[in-house]
Amino acid sequence: MLHSKLIHPKSIVVVGGSDNIHSPGGRVLKNLIDHQYKGQLFVVNPKQDCVQGVKAYNHINDIPEVDLAIIAISAKYVFETVKVLTQQKNTKGFIIFSAGFSEKDENGEKLEKEIVELINKAGGSLLGPNNIGLINNYYTGVFTTPIPKLDEKGVDFISGSGATAVFIIEAAKSMGLTFSSIYTVGNSAQVGVEEILEYLDDSFKKETSSKVKLLYIESIKNPLKFLKHTASLIRKGCKIAAIKAGSSEAGNRAASSHTGAIANSDVFIDTLFKKAGIIRCYGRNELITVAGILQQKESEGKNIAIITHAGGPAVMLTDVLSKNGLIIPHLEGKESEALLNQLFDGSSVSNPIDFLATGNAEQLGSIIDYCETASEIDAMAVIFGSPGLTTVDDVYAVLDEKIRTSKKPIYAILPSVVNVKNEIQEFIKKGNIAFHDEVLFGNALTKVYNHSSIRDETKDPDFKNFQEARKLVDALPDGYMSTESAVTLLEYAGVKFATPYNVKNEVELDQVSKSIPYPVVLKVEGPLHKSDVGGVILNISTEAELHDSFYKLMRIEGATSVIIQPMIKGMELFIGAKKETNYPHVILCGMGGIFVEVLKDISASMIPVSENVALKMITDLKAYPILKGVRGQSGINIKLFAETIVNISNLLLMVPEIAEIDLNPLMATAKDLTAVDVRIRLERTDEKLQPNEFNEIA
Amino acid sequence: MLHSKLIHPKSIVVVGGSDNIHSPGGRVLKNLIDHQYKGQLFVVNPKQDCVQGVKAYNHINDIPEVDLAIIAISAKYVFETVKVLTQQKNTKGFIIFSAGFSEKDENGEKLEKEIVELINKAGGSLLGPNNIGLINNYYTGVFTTPIPKLDEKGVDFISGSGATAVFIIEAAKSMGLTFSSIYTVGNSAQVGVEEILEYLDDSFKKETSSKVKLLYIESIKNPLKFLKHTASLIRKGCKIAAIKAGSSEAGNRAASSHTGAIANSDVFIDTLFKKAGIIRCYGRNELITVAGILQQKESEGKNIAIITHAGGPAVMLTDVLSKNGLIIPHLEGKESEALLNQLFDGSSVSNPIDFLATGNAEQLGSIIDYCETASEIDAMAVIFGSPGLTTVDDVYAVLDEKIRTSKKPIYAILPSVVNVKNEIQEFIKKGNIAFHDEVLFGNALTKVYNHSSIRDETKDPDFKNFQEARKLVDALPDGYMSTESAVTLLEYAGVKFATPYNVKNEVELDQVSKSIPYPVVLKVEGPLHKSDVGGVILNISTEAELHDSFYKLMRIEGATSVIIQPMIKGMELFIGAKKETNYPHVILCGMGGIFVEVLKDISASMIPVSENVALKMITDLKAYPILKGVRGQSGINIKLFAETIVNISNLLLMVPEIAEIDLNPLMATAKDLTAVDVRIRLERTDEKLQPNEFNEIA
Repeated sequence: MLHSKLIHPKSIVVVGGSDNIHSPGGRVLKNLIDHQYKGQLFVVNPKQDCVQGVKAYNHINDIPEVDLAIIAISAKYVFETVKVLTQQKNTKGFIIFSAGFSEKDENGEKLEKEIVELINKAGGSLLGPNNIGLINNYYTGVFTTPIPKLDEKGVDFISGSGATAVFIIEAAKSMGLTFSSIYTVGNSAQVGVEEILEYLDDSFKKETSSKVKLLYIESIKNPLKFLKHTASLIRKGCKIAAIKAGSSEAGNRAASSHTGAIANSDVFIDTLFKKAGIIRCYGRNELITVAGILQQKESEGKNIAIITHAGGPAVMLTDVLSKNGLIIPHLEGKESEALLNQLFDGSSVSNPIDFLATGNAEQLGSIIDYCETASEIDAMAVIFGSPGLTTVDDVYAVLDEKIRTSKKPIYAILPSVVNVKNEIQEFIKKGNIAFHDEVLFGNALTKVYNHSSIRDETKDPDFKNFQEARKLVDALPDGYMSTESAVTLLEYAGVKFATPYNVKNEVELDQVSKSIPYPVVLKVEGPLHKSDVGGVILNISTEAELHDSFYKLMRIEGATSVIIQPMIKGMELFIGAKKETNYPHVILCGMGGIFVEVLKDISASMIPVSENVALKMITDLKAYPILKGVRGQSGINIKLFAETIVNISNLLLMVPEIAEIDLNPLMATAKDLTAVDVRIRLERTDEKLQPNEFNEIA
Repeated sequence: MLHSKLIHPKSIVVVGGSDNIHSPGGRVLKNLIDHQYKGQLFVVNPKQDCVQGVKAYNHINDIPEVDLAIIAISAKYVFETVKVLTQQKNTKGFIIFSAGFSEKDENGEKLEKEIVELINKAGGSLLGPNNIGLINNYYTGVFTTPIPKLDEKGVDFISGSGATAVFIIEAAKSMGLTFSSIYTVGNSAQVGVEEILEYLDDSFKKETSSKVKLLYIESIKNPLKFLKHTASLIRKGCKIAAIKAGSSEAGNRAASSHTGAIANSDVFIDTLFKKAGIIRCYGRNELITVAGILQQKESEGKNIAIITHAGGPAVMLTDVLSKNGLIIPHLEGKESEALLNQLFDGSSVSNPIDFLATGNAEQLGSIIDYCETASEIDAMAVIFGSPGLTTVDDVYAVLDEKIRTSKKPIYAILPSVVNVKNEIQEFIKKGNIAFHDEVLFGNALTKVYNHSSIRDETKDPDFKNFQEARKLVDALPDGYMSTESAVTLLEYAGVKFATPYNVKNEVELDQVSKSIPYPVVLKVEGPLHKSDVGGVILNISTEAELHDSFYKLMRIEGATSVIIQPMIKGMELFIGAKKETNYPHVILCGMGGIFVEVLKDISASMIPVSENVALKMITDLKAYPILKGVRGQSGINIKLFAETIVNISNLLLMVPEIAEIDLNPLMATAKDLTAVDVRIRLERTDEKLQPNEFNEIA
């Protein structure tokens, strides 16, 4: 939990404050003064007694007790300063701008750790080092410009990069996006994105807190903490949009199974965000456009009226919205005809509603009033610029009034950033958001409207064979499990497997060949990639064939035995799961064979996976129509497929040591679902997370 | 061809010019005066003798001869005015701002036609009506603001929407994009986008003409003319980027075959653009960002160095570029170490090259010099903003100098639109382009770099059975061809078909059943959707089975006969083609079955299709690895697949009456490719285009 003195300090000392406003220490002081910090303000400056009109002390030892220290001095002096502050000045809040710590070298890292220890010991909170600071409604503790418009209902923004925060603030300005708070974490030595999320979560007040959070993240150190607080904030009614940069860095690509090859790090971020309900963005412009949309009233549906005085932008907006699943309903009937009569000749009300280049403020008012009552419409996008002949103040005044009074959201797309620049500024000053490019807006709108944050059902996972599973696994070493153990583990998890007979010699072969139902399939044990070495023989229907095939397989290099299974017919499915560092497992599913290998038609979710989420994974597959049945072929039992995914999810909760699991293929029919091949790899880590913790979190 | 007096008028009359600069007539006059039109200028104004200092005549009859008339009066007076101008004043250029013509109603359409007739008779050229005019280096004949910065090497821009043109000019301003000419076509009564392209093509001069063309189009009236001139301009070294709005309007969706269902109008635009080599864009921001990239030096490869003083934007740019196939090569070795020594501690030169927040102009110069000589690098993207502490003039001066002197393209991403607004303006004034959002830039860059405009080989199509094919088709009515005729036509086209026997009765059945190689397949003739009525029976291996199956099929409602074919094994492929209005045919190909029906994994090209293009269509398929052979299964003969696509293309050139053709499936093996089902629909239109015309065009 962040210390309240970091958030609401009654006194601040700027260590390294100066009259040079081109230096961090000088600029942060100027920002604090300019934006009327109400508490006590001190400066430590070795040479001056007064800096920018503020009392300055020559040495840190001389200052009175102080809540927050903003430190802008060379890295080598920081430790001593923090020592004095923590031990003598009762300081609990620290912002350290200085660079030269863990981002630089090992010595810096050591120094950083020592500073954190001092602060931890004092029970304080540290933002930084190597950051640009913190802005909230209480104080503007940053050394950068511009300071954005602050507003209790503005967005809360946490940034892993100071420069990116600045550029986002700059870009947000022309849209009119306001902020409630901005945190930059720098090296995240003590307080990272997760801790700030925890603070926002714990201190959230339904009536007064901002409902929109933006994140720019480069790394997530503690995914579970991240998940816990983002999910909690979203449950409380917040919307979160986030950029996780570095998504193309190849993750763990060396894994041997298909799952390994497919699930690189980015799928962990993707499924983590999905689980929490975060809207994922990929660029600054997209992030602030999404934020601008989230700051409007919420829409009850996906039916959009496009209101315009210019055809072109309306057509492009229609294209992007309807291509992405939003609806531009055709409007007709008595009311729409009555509306048409109020517009100039040549106007169209069928949607887009085009009231022509000559359209005026009064007409816009009538159109919005019509849409406000029309049951076919959930939201309005108004496009209104100017070719430069006339002013548009009156139009924007109507737009402003209607945005405030209407129940449905109205999005203002104001493209004339040159011709009516001042009118747009005026419109923004009144607290509105102005979008400028209809297609960038349209892409963001579909992202927001198509974002589903359906909560999982929090049914208790089924752990009935927990003890047996633990006992089995605890007795095994790390590495690939034998088929026998793996099949037993699947049984505990409730997953059906085509009974495999592990045959090592002629005696065993004779026994099996007489009792097993034909046709059967033979797979060599030993070599990892069986198919590549010709280690799989299908469709053996006689005892004689079975004998021949057995010896053929045993001659393969590395062969230790042969697995003989009844040959199961059906559609090939695939379920896999993978773990990476300290993230929960990600489960993947799809159709087997070429669908997973060539077409990469795969759905992914982070555990725990409920049946609803499993069903969504299945319906999201491109191959879903095939699973349902096409071209006269019957489909598979989709409920059973979903249940199997849930069973695997529960297995992973019971046995978190499973680093990789591959069921490929499972054979599915309209009635049945049977796994015919399995590979499980165990890898123990230090991390100990009990199954039930997940349910608390997600 | 546009009349030269429209482009370079020595004299202009503004009919309806006034002192009211909030009216079109007043504003266009002001624009002409403000931007120093060098020719003679007159005004027609019924009440004044002098307007804005320009000599005004009270009546059109009174003016001297004049090259160009810009008409800004009520629609009802336009005809008489044009009559006088064409018949008495030797006027050849016309721009009509007035609305109230074909866009309004039938009367308006009639009036518009009469005006066009007058101008046609006089051999003149008309831009409009209902447009905002024309801007070039010679005169600024528009009634809108702002007038963009004009520059011989700026982009040529043709817009189907006046308002969109204005908004694009406005958005382009903050980037520094300059224009060579801007044409708005309004109702395109006489001159449309195609005619302006023709003019730009015919008047193109390698040394002096602008090489970048932008189009905003809502409809293409003459696709072949459009194709001819865009392709020609691109052959001459131009780059064209275009928005075709209205892409989501559902086209002809009622067609019965799969091809019909898949190929809606947008695929015609897509393939038309591809054939010409046009870069397709979907929004204003994207269009001008692409234009900004096209205005830089051309890169020789896809290896990008990202140079930055801020980590975040560089990471986001790396993500978007590398996800889309561009390369951010890792840099190492002696030279890169030497470079590192010139930078501050903590910098990184491995690419992204991060020279830290404290990085300076001199260091930027060294980095660019290094990249300019590094063989691993083809282009540079420099990200440099400001947190507001210091000025960046010196950095932007280095950037400007290096952009002008380096051989490799250098893209400037300047995100600090607030903090260093003036410095960015200064940078732009020197003739540079500034991008502001790295991800919007990155998406546009990958669009440009991944755009291939490989020319088709212009091998003469093979029409050896032209006479036979024509004779066969000429004797048939419109509608679906019988299987027999269709198979004959395929033979003429050089496409192998599994010999079908059309059996109507027991006698015929006996004959066939004794001679055909088993196994065979039976398909009912009569019902259109055979599979849906159980009209296909596969894998019949005995005479007895064949008899039973025949009678079973003949009992289906609407059955007229049964087609018996040898059963061909192999991978199912699909080739189809479709025609829409006056566009050339589009050919589609893919794997058959679920790949076309469920996964919609289809490639499309406009005819004529060369073998190279056909091969590209095949390799573009998601299923391509399957065609090559996966999981121990041998692939198909891909060259034969490509040749068959070319054969169908040639067939469509010979028989343009084919409205739809469906080969679904064709059975392919490593050696052979045989069609086993075909459906062809004939539909004659007025349009007569000879096969060889295509080769001239494309």
